[in-house]
Amino acid sequence: MSTQEAHPTLLIPGPIEFDDAVLQAMSHYSESHVGAAFVAVFGETLSMLRKLFQTSNPASQPFVISGSGTLGWDQVAANLAEPGDEVLVLHTGYFADSFADCFDTYGAKPTQLKAPIGDRPQQDAVEKALKEKKYKLITVTHVDTSTGVLSDIKSLAELVHRVSPETLIVVDGVCSVGSEDIRFDDWGIDVVITASQKAIGCPAGLSILMASGRAIETFKARKTKPTSYFGSWKNWLPIMQNYEAKKASYFATPSPQLVRALHTSLTQILASPLDERFARHKEVSQKIKQAVAALGLKQLADKPENQANGMTAIYLPEGIAAAQILPNLLQKKVIFAGGLHKEIASKYIRFGHMGVSVTDPRKNDIDRAIDALKSGLSEAGYTAP
Amino acid sequence: MSTQEAHPTLLIPGPIEFDDAVLQAMSHYSESHVGAAFVAVFGETLSMLRKLFQTSNPASQPFVISGSGTLGWDQVAANLAEPGDEVLVLHTGYFADSFADCFDTYGAKPTQLKAPIGDRPQQDAVEKALKEKKYKLITVTHVDTSTGVLSDIKSLAELVHRVSPETLIVVDGVCSVGSEDIRFDDWGIDVVITASQKAIGCPAGLSILMASGRAIETFKARKTKPTSYFGSWKNWLPIMQNYEAKKASYFATPSPQLVRALHTSLTQILASPLDERFARHKEVSQKIKQAVAALGLKQLADKPENQANGMTAIYLPEGIAAAQILPNLLQKKVIFAGGLHKEIASKYIRFGHMGVSVTDPRKNDIDRAIDALKSGLSEAGYTAP
Repeated sequence: MSTQEAHPTLLIPGPIEFDDAVLQAMSHYSESHVGAAFVAVFGETLSMLRKLFQTSNPASQPFVISGSGTLGWDQVAANLAEPGDEVLVLHTGYFADSFADCFDTYGAKPTQLKAPIGDRPQQDAVEKALKEKKYKLITVTHVDTSTGVLSDIKSLAELVHRVSPETLIVVDGVCSVGSEDIRFDDWGIDVVITASQKAIGCPAGLSILMASGRAIETFKARKTKPTSYFGSWKNWLPIMQNYEAKKASYFATPSPQLVRALHTSLTQILASPLDERFARHKEVSQKIKQAVAALGLKQLADKPENQANGMTAIYLPEGIAAAQILPNLLQKKVIFAGGLHKEIASKYIRFGHMGVSVTDPRKNDIDRAIDALKSGLSEAGYTAP
Repeated sequence: MSTQEAHPTLLIPGPIEFDDAVLQAMSHYSESHVGAAFVAVFGETLSMLRKLFQTSNPASQPFVISGSGTLGWDQVAANLAEPGDEVLVLHTGYFADSFADCFDTYGAKPTQLKAPIGDRPQQDAVEKALKEKKYKLITVTHVDTSTGVLSDIKSLAELVHRVSPETLIVVDGVCSVGSEDIRFDDWGIDVVITASQKAIGCPAGLSILMASGRAIETFKARKTKPTSYFGSWKNWLPIMQNYEAKKASYFATPSPQLVRALHTSLTQILASPLDERFARHKEVSQKIKQAVAALGLKQLADKPENQANGMTAIYLPEGIAAAQILPNLLQKKVIFAGGLHKEIASKYIRFGHMGVSVTDPRKNDIDRAIDALKSGLSEAGYTAP
């Protein structure tokens, strides 16, 4: 595809580089959102999401709705929390503040459990918090896009099941689904929210969510009505169930082009075993982290077990600002992102390594990016120790 | 573009047929949502919307957010109504019921003023309603996609300004913006909501909205916080203002591909005078309506002044159901929509005639559709009187 030729390589933690076939699906001719061809594609897309989230429980419910990843927060806050409900929000960076703000908007009561920058709340602190108060929901950012901090969902879920089994476990997987292992059934997760434009490898514009049967039952048992209209599962649940059963259904017009692109990317992802995909992301991530260390640079996430496999947040050397190094990298046809964590935004950069840049053997995006980073820092006067 | 070749022509009241260049923009290579190139495109897109809505008042504020057209209702109900506020909803079909439901979700008190199927509430009834109660907002569906009924926004706005000048005027223009004249400044409208996939001619996935300075001031003077997070103008207002000023800004990740497609379609629309565009839609609509009358068929909107210029809702002859005629038309490579108004859904079909199918002289979509309708009815045993 000519539009793909020679563009700067996008290695930010989302949107990522997209495969040609996915972009080609974006330009699919116009079709009816209730026509048989599109209904089949949408239905298959929902079914494929079950595989990506590793859930075979028929009570699990996938949702695909036009919107940003942020809409997933509204879905959780408006459908699962009722006004006055207590919510425990584990904080690993920028996104927990915003999720807490979202709960507050819908009348729930968020309590944030914070960790120092680059770290995550420890198990004993979470256990203590869960014992102090009865929480309807606990939320955790699987990979915090602002810091590159990875949370350990499996251990966290075990803890919650042991200490506060009625608490619903909500995972913000916007920056993890597709690059980190998520075993929805095995780990007993209730909700994972994500978006299309990161490791799933489809252009932005879709809010993607998986809910457990328990989450759906909790929704159905609400005493009050959902407090969002566009994000209401009352409106969307029958639509998603109908489409997956290959029956046309209407609440709001979906985006056939985006759904076709998602169908294409999911088909590609599921063509290989998921374990291989996650192992490949880990392998490439290790290579990047070793290169960063060899340059004498530190990550925001300083403990290996806290480090995401789809992105790396890197502290710049003293005296070199993000605003200096990013334009230099762009000249080398590599795009990294600046910092997002308010307190230290100018002092670090973010390198996204998800999707085809990692999995497609025809691409050398990662090696070029590492070389660009090395030479860029050198040109800025930095010498590795 | 090969994917466009020989596909059935989509003549439903949205999504519509899209121009090749618009679809090509959908497959644009991945780019950063905060990179200079995309920021410029997004900024220009917002500025072009001012022209499409015919507003030169700098206080007017455009919004473009990932979502369906329905998200526009949430934006209005969550940002402009406060819990307990009275809202007058003019009813011309399916969509007023849903908009009223949306207001109810956010705690406002909708009162519906209904008209018989195919008609619209009359000016004297609206005047009476406005004098009985103080309404914070009045809403009107410019073209009701379920019935093809056109409302007279200019006369309605004059009435509201005279009888209840403090009431904000909200137009649901999902099925009218781009095919019907809307003079935002001249008529003194406060909000128009719309979506990308109808007469604007860009694939579905964008909620598009124009707010007046008065609407923004009303929002800023709220006593309570907006009751949506993803739809909150508190979150989006600075983002839209920054992008239009060509400054990168982040709340939630926009869809660069959809915004580029919108930029392409708006550039095409604004390349000719809007008056010519609306006149062309009217001319083609008249031709279709004359053909429908010549077939001895009636429209749901039986008065000429109630008839939309971008779609026609047609009662089928006695004994012929939508489920019978639509597959026949599909064989002829023409896609019409079935009925949507609950009480009479099987008894009528909807013919959308917006965008390139109407304005592109290289296309013969409309003539083919009229011919297909004639022969399809004939094959179903119907003889025109």
